Amino acid sequence: MTTERQFIRDLQAQFGTVPPVKIGIGDDGAVLDVSGDSEQVVVTDLLLDGVHFDLNVTSPFLAGRKAVAVNLSDLAAMGCRPTAAFVSLAIPRGRPQAATDFLCELYRGIQQMTDEFQFSLAGGDTNSWNGPFAINVCLTGVPFSRRPFLRSDAQPGDSVFVTGPLGGSLDGGRHLTFMPRLQISAWLARTVEVRAMLDLSDGLSIDLHRMMEASGTAAEIFTSRIPIHSDVSAEWSSDKRLTAALSDGEDFELLFSVSGAVAETLQAAANDNAIPLFQIGRVTTGSGVRLIDSSGNSQILDVTGWQHRF
Amino acid sequence: MTTERQFIRDLQAQFGTVPPVKIGIGDDGAVLDVSGDSEQVVVTDLLLDGVHFDLNVTSPFLAGRKAVAVNLSDLAAMGCRPTAAFVSLAIPRGRPQAATDFLCELYRGIQQMTDEFQFSLAGGDTNSWNGPFAINVCLTGVPFSRRPFLRSDAQPGDSVFVTGPLGGSLDGGRHLTFMPRLQISAWLARTVEVRAMLDLSDGLSIDLHRMMEASGTAAEIFTSRIPIHSDVSAEWSSDKRLTAALSDGEDFELLFSVSGAVAETLQAAANDNAIPLFQIGRVTTGSGVRLIDSSGNSQILDVTGWQHRF
Repeated sequence: MTTERQFIRDLQAQFGTVPPVKIGIGDDGAVLDVSGDSEQVVVTDLLLDGVHFDLNVTSPFLAGRKAVAVNLSDLAAMGCRPTAAFVSLAIPRGRPQAATDFLCELYRGIQQMTDEFQFSLAGGDTNSWNGPFAINVCLTGVPFSRRPFLRSDAQPGDSVFVTGPLGGSLDGGRHLTFMPRLQISAWLARTVEVRAMLDLSDGLSIDLHRMMEASGTAAEIFTSRIPIHSDVSAEWSSDKRLTAALSDGEDFELLFSVSGAVAETLQAAANDNAIPLFQIGRVTTGSGVRLIDSSGNSQILDVTGWQHRF
Repeated sequence: MTTERQFIRDLQAQFGTVPPVKIGIGDDGAVLDVSGDSEQVVVTDLLLDGVHFDLNVTSPFLAGRKAVAVNLSDLAAMGCRPTAAFVSLAIPRGRPQAATDFLCELYRGIQQMTDEFQFSLAGGDTNSWNGPFAINVCLTGVPFSRRPFLRSDAQPGDSVFVTGPLGGSLDGGRHLTFMPRLQISAWLARTVEVRAMLDLSDGLSIDLHRMMEASGTAAEIFTSRIPIHSDVSAEWSSDKRLTAALSDGEDFELLFSVSGAVAETLQAAANDNAIPLFQIGRVTTGSGVRLIDSSGNSQILDVTGWQHRF
């Protein structure tokens, strides 16, 4: 049994990083030094029927939309706007007319994202087979400001923020309809010096651990400050609601850190511009993540959340 | 029933091309204007168990190798060297140890190509599911010379070349072990002004039609000059052998045109440098492809070869 985390470490050890690649395996996207001082970011995600959506109940429109949106969320996490999309499809054989309608709806979903964020569908590959539906999307992007944001740049003393309430995304269907946080990422890029950033795909708990591990730092987060989404049942106990916010995953909000010295100014500017920002904790020295309750009691937060195992 | 060809046309009509994309859907790869006058090419191919290889008989090493090699062939066709690879996997659930060994062999096959051509595995996505194995590879590349080669730049009067013998690739297993023609592409880029180029993935007949259609030209090819691979049985009739060379597909040789005025010089230079080049015909005005036999009789060559239908 290999976890995704161990698997990525093994790949990093096996494959070196050769220019023009500056940042390879391990972040939300790769950074390429394409020409002189200009950088490009490439992200990719493969979405599978029965895993990331269920075509028995999910429309092809929403499946296509999600396949692009999750990649846009990765670009937002890298502080980048999209420049081009490449879409590969594996389409189950049979029922030709149904397949044509299916593709039409799928590409309408894709187009909603390319229209919204003004970039091109520039290529791809389309195949039919005797397996279930699969869609791979690869996006290229360029930084909003002078450089991409990495998950490895948090520093002790930083304040930690999230861009929206968490939990209940899968049960509530939000994972199919969320708006990738490109506008907030662009606003942050021109407003503040972002330190570390990633997008919350597997849950705050595991994703915050990832950021701290990549940065060589620890974090403290305050239970009372973690915003819980209305998709999480109000009838549940506060513990169960907190667990949902920490580990449901697929929130696709941004998690980032900025210097503690600018945190209050940033929060005020966000409020003035109706940008949703929630300051949930701070970065410290050491390793791991501690959860601090309203009485000031502190406990170690385990790495929880969803990891693929194969 | 929609052919792949019609499907691509529909997508071109539905999705516009926005800068920095210069060339979008329809060639072997997309061309992005990444900075000032420097261009980048992006290619992608999705390979599926039971379609592009059969894991009952194909080793994971060869499956991984092929997934990268077919993309390298697309880059060669665009006149580009690779800069980075992005690999997405859908892995069937179950048998954990077998899966670990499988992945190890698969990545060894990928690494054979990244080592051979000196570029990075820079990212990807790995998932498990209840479907068959699928692998998507996306490569970035940059031109060997000042610009990428397109399939749409053939001109009447050009000579048409292929870089190796054709046919029998699937039966002979060559589709799993071929060497992408990056070295020949690099040599051509510095030796001659290449007009149009693509790689022979679906067979000379259909791929030559694609080049002529994209260029708004016609072609004549000479049956006696079409090189037939030794993977095609010598016991077959000459007609059957010719059909194999025209339409078996997955040859992954380069098909290109140069001005007729430089064809003889190019052929001589190729001979001096042990570069395999076969001049098979010429570009004319009009449309379609004509096949000319050794008696000088001419017939229209149908668009044959393998097209996905879904």
